[in-house]
Amino acid sequence: MDKITEKKYLVLDPGSASKKCALYVDATEVFKIHLEKENGKFIGETTTKAGKEKISLTEREYRSAFVYILDLLKKNKFIEKNEDISGVGLRIVAPGKYFLEDRIVDAKFIKNLETAQKEAPLHVTEALLEIKEIQAILPSVVIAGISDSAWNSTMNEVAKHYSLPIDLAEKYGIYRFGYHGISMQSVVSKIKLITDTIPSRVIICHLGSGSSIVAVKDGKCFDTSMGFTPLEGVPMATRIGNIDAGAILYLLKKTKMKPDELGELLNSKCGLLGLSGTSSDTRELITLSERGDEKAKLALESFVYGVKKYIGEYIAVLGGIDMLVFTATIGERSSIMREKICEGLQNLGIVLDKAKNDTTVSTDTFIQNSTSKVKIAVICTEELKEIAGETAKLI
Amino acid sequence: MDKITEKKYLVLDPGSASKKCALYVDATEVFKIHLEKENGKFIGETTTKAGKEKISLTEREYRSAFVYILDLLKKNKFIEKNEDISGVGLRIVAPGKYFLEDRIVDAKFIKNLETAQKEAPLHVTEALLEIKEIQAILPSVVIAGISDSAWNSTMNEVAKHYSLPIDLAEKYGIYRFGYHGISMQSVVSKIKLITDTIPSRVIICHLGSGSSIVAVKDGKCFDTSMGFTPLEGVPMATRIGNIDAGAILYLLKKTKMKPDELGELLNSKCGLLGLSGTSSDTRELITLSERGDEKAKLALESFVYGVKKYIGEYIAVLGGIDMLVFTATIGERSSIMREKICEGLQNLGIVLDKAKNDTTVSTDTFIQNSTSKVKIAVICTEELKEIAGETAKLI
Repeated sequence: MDKITEKKYLVLDPGSASKKCALYVDATEVFKIHLEKENGKFIGETTTKAGKEKISLTEREYRSAFVYILDLLKKNKFIEKNEDISGVGLRIVAPGKYFLEDRIVDAKFIKNLETAQKEAPLHVTEALLEIKEIQAILPSVVIAGISDSAWNSTMNEVAKHYSLPIDLAEKYGIYRFGYHGISMQSVVSKIKLITDTIPSRVIICHLGSGSSIVAVKDGKCFDTSMGFTPLEGVPMATRIGNIDAGAILYLLKKTKMKPDELGELLNSKCGLLGLSGTSSDTRELITLSERGDEKAKLALESFVYGVKKYIGEYIAVLGGIDMLVFTATIGERSSIMREKICEGLQNLGIVLDKAKNDTTVSTDTFIQNSTSKVKIAVICTEELKEIAGETAKLI
Repeated sequence: MDKITEKKYLVLDPGSASKKCALYVDATEVFKIHLEKENGKFIGETTTKAGKEKISLTEREYRSAFVYILDLLKKNKFIEKNEDISGVGLRIVAPGKYFLEDRIVDAKFIKNLETAQKEAPLHVTEALLEIKEIQAILPSVVIAGISDSAWNSTMNEVAKHYSLPIDLAEKYGIYRFGYHGISMQSVVSKIKLITDTIPSRVIICHLGSGSSIVAVKDGKCFDTSMGFTPLEGVPMATRIGNIDAGAILYLLKKTKMKPDELGELLNSKCGLLGLSGTSSDTRELITLSERGDEKAKLALESFVYGVKKYIGEYIAVLGGIDMLVFTATIGERSSIMREKICEGLQNLGIVLDKAKNDTTVSTDTFIQNSTSKVKIAVICTEELKEIAGETAKLI
């Protein structure tokens, strides 16, 4: 390919517990880096044609990841100078109808994001920081804000609404948007590739530090567990998931917390961490639970119970299920959690093959038993590739 | 029976949209009255051995229903004087571990109820008013506070917990309690009577102005849709049901409402009324919907969708379903709503018999098709009888 027509896109996914970034040359990923904090240390893993490599970072390097990554790309000759980057694609997790589309980040976009930040500070703050850092270093680069809710916008009308007064919902834009759309779109594309078609009724469990369950009807989003914000749904690593609105109002009165303070608590101190009191990491909780830690056991069971409930409710509204899919960190890597989730669902036609499940780690494959009416798949989500594709389309 | 040993209990169920009251002589109901507001008028229906009779009341009579009913009982010679009442049983809907038991209403009970009222004002206020009125008229009568959550206390441990930090949940007593326990207990008893046994996995849909779905395992509550307060669950006549905690915090910030104001809105302006903008009554909404009112249609569909989802999730956590039961006003009387709820659930083994369903109004019967793997029942709940029984046990 002629080097002049080559487009280099940097794609960023500032997740809630990690940062992922990749360099795409046209549609090909040439470099990927995954940064996370583990046991108080900042570590990274790069993936290139040459293989994988572990690195450790200082906290400052982690905080200014964009600068760090650009330097790494130059050092490794993927780019000569910062200006070689044709565009940056950034995952946007923000409530509101405006953010239901992929959009070029301009002054209006930033203004809307700043408004969203004031009202729902979590998740949006990271994206804003990222944008400001990119603009400081690459002032003329085009940034594509890739919506994490766009894919969910085919959700059925009933699922989009809370039962608020219609005028109030309209005035403040309070609807169910859902998130993890980029991941779900990636998984659906891969199912189509692998099976040549997509079964009519699919349920995808995106299980990571944030978790979403989605009901997919004929390849499109029919319903999803996250709502107006990414707080709704199953209990997550540190997010509460579903809770009675009456309990929220009661907590505000009793604790005298401000809505933002309670929001911070519900986002960062609940879920697996809240119930266990020790860890937000399912691997650690499994170890603790095996050692007899009752709180760790309760935390894991709550997560499993929450996922099971969504599988059941989506089977009811889809009128059945043809395929159940596990994706994202826990879904791709944890045979134990997959086994716990499928346990007791044989009456719904869901039966795992224990050996296949136990040996499946981060590969695209089927893990159902021959008696299972429902296909059960592990599909590795490729959110960065999806962001790169959407970025190329938009820019 | 010797008249001297006869015990006369007055039982009261101050519901959210109506008041029900009955006089029991030992275990036998001799008089029942159902008061409600309909189209701005206050109406009542009495049931005695002689049959049913409609009456109309003034607003004042409705507000002071207890006085009105005692006068009616004297006028009709069911009692000679107020003091003939041996005890009063009152349904108590209040969050907190204290209210998980049936208790004699004493100073401590009232104090706890007053505390609960400050923190979760709705539902508790009515009970307190009722207690004060009873004590003013019958100062020496024993009042039994019959817990609407006691029956739910066998709920599985996971279902009892939100994923809040364990210490915070403990400090403020924030757990899922569930309500409509008196009704569910009545329905379970009746299933046992009718079928001689209770199937292992039963799902009961109590559908009225407040609605609960409950998963019953071997006759006991396994999970239920209402939570810390009766606000959680499916969208109800005027209650919101489930909503993202993030949306609640956002609404508080945007509208500048106080928690109590928002609580009032979520309890009395949402649900079917909120979505339709016109009515909280499914009968009216069905008529409007048939005339092409899109908002009425959305409201009905949201209710049906919510119930379907709970049926699916409880099938998943129960590992299957043997019997589906409809009860309470909508469940007992509305063949249209039962049909809409069962539509599309044939893959879960749930198939209605259209003719049986269409002809069933307020009778205990089965309405499944011969091909249905799952039994589908309509069972008329007898909450007052249940309250009378519990009152007699306690006093």
